[in-house]
Amino acid sequence: MKKHNFGAGPSILPQEVFEQSAQACVDYNGIGLSILEISHRSKEFLDILDETISLTKELLNIPQGYQVLLVQGGGNMQFDMVPYNILNENETADFVETDLWSVRAEEEARLYGKTNIVASSKEANFNFIPKNFTVDEDAAYLHLTSNNTIYGTEFLEDKTYPVPVVCDMSSDIFSRPVDISKYHLIYAGAQKNLGCSGITLVIIKDAWLGRSNRPKSKMWDYSIYAKNNSLYNTPPVFTIYTCLLTLRWLKKLGGLAEMEKRNIAKSTLLYKEIDRNTLFKGHAVPEDRSRMNINFIAHNPEHETAFLEFVKKYNIHGIKGYRTVGGFRASCYNAMPIEGVQILVNAMQEFEKVNS
Amino acid sequence: MKKHNFGAGPSILPQEVFEQSAQACVDYNGIGLSILEISHRSKEFLDILDETISLTKELLNIPQGYQVLLVQGGGNMQFDMVPYNILNENETADFVETDLWSVRAEEEARLYGKTNIVASSKEANFNFIPKNFTVDEDAAYLHLTSNNTIYGTEFLEDKTYPVPVVCDMSSDIFSRPVDISKYHLIYAGAQKNLGCSGITLVIIKDAWLGRSNRPKSKMWDYSIYAKNNSLYNTPPVFTIYTCLLTLRWLKKLGGLAEMEKRNIAKSTLLYKEIDRNTLFKGHAVPEDRSRMNINFIAHNPEHETAFLEFVKKYNIHGIKGYRTVGGFRASCYNAMPIEGVQILVNAMQEFEKVNS
Repeated sequence: MKKHNFGAGPSILPQEVFEQSAQACVDYNGIGLSILEISHRSKEFLDILDETISLTKELLNIPQGYQVLLVQGGGNMQFDMVPYNILNENETADFVETDLWSVRAEEEARLYGKTNIVASSKEANFNFIPKNFTVDEDAAYLHLTSNNTIYGTEFLEDKTYPVPVVCDMSSDIFSRPVDISKYHLIYAGAQKNLGCSGITLVIIKDAWLGRSNRPKSKMWDYSIYAKNNSLYNTPPVFTIYTCLLTLRWLKKLGGLAEMEKRNIAKSTLLYKEIDRNTLFKGHAVPEDRSRMNINFIAHNPEHETAFLEFVKKYNIHGIKGYRTVGGFRASCYNAMPIEGVQILVNAMQEFEKVNS
Repeated sequence: MKKHNFGAGPSILPQEVFEQSAQACVDYNGIGLSILEISHRSKEFLDILDETISLTKELLNIPQGYQVLLVQGGGNMQFDMVPYNILNENETADFVETDLWSVRAEEEARLYGKTNIVASSKEANFNFIPKNFTVDEDAAYLHLTSNNTIYGTEFLEDKTYPVPVVCDMSSDIFSRPVDISKYHLIYAGAQKNLGCSGITLVIIKDAWLGRSNRPKSKMWDYSIYAKNNSLYNTPPVFTIYTCLLTLRWLKKLGGLAEMEKRNIAKSTLLYKEIDRNTLFKGHAVPEDRSRMNINFIAHNPEHETAFLEFVKKYNIHGIKGYRTVGGFRASCYNAMPIEGVQILVNAMQEFEKVNS
């Protein structure tokens, strides 16, 4: 029986993506070959790649003047590739620290230039999104993490800042319409809302290609990816295909406006129960609550293990919180249906009845 | 109907790997989750990773004192990571140029230290493996490409050299028993004999971890992979699973000694026909012929298009040669059964009858 997967990532994808991926492993589109054995130079794969990129542009409404690249290595690789490609040694990048990932991004950037943490919610165990911070007007860029998987906070607006903005959208891309024009560079590991693990989406302003002046190795140079349509080397064919299948599903459902509606409905349902239920409380402050990763803890520490055990009979999977927060984390990515969230809410209510 | 896939890569994998991968996309091992949605920290994936690494060690008979790492980015990424991790700025790496990939490896290494091409078969369109070349005794290492996918030549012996040896085994790893002790570092993109595209195997001597003294970014530092069991960041879960399935198949068949026998039988069958057939001739010199990529051309240039058309009725796929060689390339990786090679031989014989 299929589990309700609330895991933080690699995470749930639409059921039809699982089924279509399986079919392609045996025979891709009836061509007599598995998707796992087709060449990255074949017409079949070039069509997959083109449609993946064009659907990304369409769904995110990416304006002219941006490149869409597909790069291996995940968000961690981008913690290096961004400063390597953008930041000169004598320049400064500003960071807002909202979780462990922003911390890693800032630490890696020190290898390539100067860094400056302009705001942080570290002292409050990252339970809020800093506001009203001041950005250095001469910074090369400001780095943000739009959604904070571990702590369950999220920037839900695309604001204007006095310097170019780089944003790690690994865990909330495609969850709402985004004003891409507010960003010079966006990156996102696939394994939350886009596809299975093994590929990263990079959206970069044309004008930023070749910005930093250091000599670059080919596999770390965004320009090489842009010039070669992300085909300078062999890309992960199957992984990109899972992205395409997910994007097609997203378009069929109505795109990002519809997805945002659903994500608001799901997160509202769960936060309402967290606030109502006498046994649980939320981690993030209400105004910065993430729609993607919903963190809550039990008032009574003994209920933590008990609730994890209790939900098993509901076929609920993956709600254990990260060790630095404890408690529970219900990740409600795009592919999680509201019915799954309702089952978790039912479990919380039943648990309250039994334990009050 | 399943095609006989002679493509150079991403390439044929065992039929049971296609089927087991498909099953896992729908439900991995009956756990109620797809392989595409399981966490890289789950027990299920940790077991996959452990078995992949231990089967790699077992099948390749890797001695004590080596690390087996799994890295994203393919062989191209290793063209940079090897010198970045090993070569200091004032040191020299020696290269034997046997194809376009060795050329790329040498070019990238220039960013990190000095390079020296000690031998090359470029003038002969890479149709042989240079022998009796002299290696600088003070070189940090010698870089070889054991199998040359484009030109169809192969180093079939593991020789001793006066300096540590780095070897790109992307297209012939697991095709024969290898004396790992002759190498300090071996790398291989998965997408020929190991699994689907998206992961690279790196085998490195413990003593070489941290060799170069430059400050390193985490995702490019072999030590980080070694310390974290290749789990510092989210690895491509599904891709690694296809490797495991392929390694299990390899072990079941009898391991690398058996595989070498089969590869000798297949390549002998095809080279014999190339040498016998009045319409075709081989590209590589006989003593350096690859067992993996078998290149041949038509004496009559008009037969090139005609033969590509002719083989379609045999359901033969992917034998067009690379543009710098022309003609045909039949890649006979581990998963290609001798029956497939026999069908190609039949097609060549039939074509000769029709066209003589």
